[in-house]
Amino acid sequence: METHSQRYFSFVDLMGLEQRYRASFVNSLSGFKSVALIGTSNSSKQTNLAIFNSLIHIGANPPYIGFISRPDSVDRHTLSNIMETGYYTINHINEAIFKQAHQTSARYPRDISEFDATHLTADYKLGFKAPFVKESFIQMGIQFKERIHITTNNTVLVIGQINQVYFPNDCLCNDGFLDIEKAKTITCSGLDSYHKTERLARLTYAKADRDLSIAKLGYIE
Amino acid sequence: METHSQRYFSFVDLMGLEQRYRASFVNSLSGFKSVALIGTSNSSKQTNLAIFNSLIHIGANPPYIGFISRPDSVDRHTLSNIMETGYYTINHINEAIFKQAHQTSARYPRDISEFDATHLTADYKLGFKAPFVKESFIQMGIQFKERIHITTNNTVLVIGQINQVYFPNDCLCNDGFLDIEKAKTITCSGLDSYHKTERLARLTYAKADRDLSIAKLGYIE
Repeated sequence: METHSQRYFSFVDLMGLEQRYRASFVNSLSGFKSVALIGTSNSSKQTNLAIFNSLIHIGANPPYIGFISRPDSVDRHTLSNIMETGYYTINHINEAIFKQAHQTSARYPRDISEFDATHLTADYKLGFKAPFVKESFIQMGIQFKERIHITTNNTVLVIGQINQVYFPNDCLCNDGFLDIEKAKTITCSGLDSYHKTERLARLTYAKADRDLSIAKLGYIE
Repeated sequence: METHSQRYFSFVDLMGLEQRYRASFVNSLSGFKSVALIGTSNSSKQTNLAIFNSLIHIGANPPYIGFISRPDSVDRHTLSNIMETGYYTINHINEAIFKQAHQTSARYPRDISEFDATHLTADYKLGFKAPFVKESFIQMGIQFKERIHITTNNTVLVIGQINQVYFPNDCLCNDGFLDIEKAKTITCSGLDSYHKTERLARLTYAKADRDLSIAKLGYIE
């Protein structure tokens, strides 16, 4: 099965790499990542928008979603705004906006909103306290629930409850699966590589005593 | 930008959904996910292999990687084996093995190894205590570091240090970026949908005072 010549790095090799080289390499190892824009505002209604590539499913009952934040990086306004207001939005990124989404990672002064700087549109829905990204096709309004300190490297796992979700009606399947590929959601790898996807298959629930088969998508009409 | 008619679910709507429907829906919301096979063995050398779709980059210095485990699900052998031996492997999944990878999620009796049941090959390297998946192109040997209890829904964030990494030499770029798409790594969405990828672009480091451009891949010869 191995078609390439294989190379090996030990922990010592990894620690000996130049810092940015190591960051790029190790960020590639966690596979394709969820990438999304997180929208917040502070108590003075100053908006902030930042790209995160560390979204993670926490649980469905209740519906909880998490992301990893680095206290001392560009996402510091996101974290402080969430602590200040208790609310934020998570917005999927599609092919039409991935360059603008990446640009939100630049270090803008606090009084400049990344919405304005990147020409993305702040959208307020149903009185929700944080701004959604109008150009995103899957948008969630999140209520902060728990902040967990990861002592090993001083990062923070932020967990929130999904209070609102907006999605394209024609992407919902009859078993609850939301076809995010049809909704044009993209993925990323490493620190700066963006990818669209092509479905191989949905598979049926695995059981020990039977072979797998391909599951139908079954969109709701 | 909105080409589809939009639909809305509130938190109350989500909580009112049938359990499996909600699980399928909410698992779709976290975007495309890292999916990998985690290989372990217990102190009696009984091997275990399980698919996880919750891999997460924790940090590059030192190189740490995490995943979310549900204590009462099929991954329970993985977690108990990690606690018993302190070591595990994380193996990327490619198109040739995604059905076998999915099949590891079936509930096999403890005395049956998922390696045997799914016809994947346990590979031992450099005396590492846990088995790698021979058919995987990017393989990591991990040393357990920290287990963090997520109280909100009784899940566990398991964090480990990357002690060994094996990868295809022709997928490494000259700035440390590892081209996992070239290495045929796939991604997943929801609970059962598998996808290959197509790169849109690598983008340059974002700065507030300049426009983005496309970064070159620059493979090492």
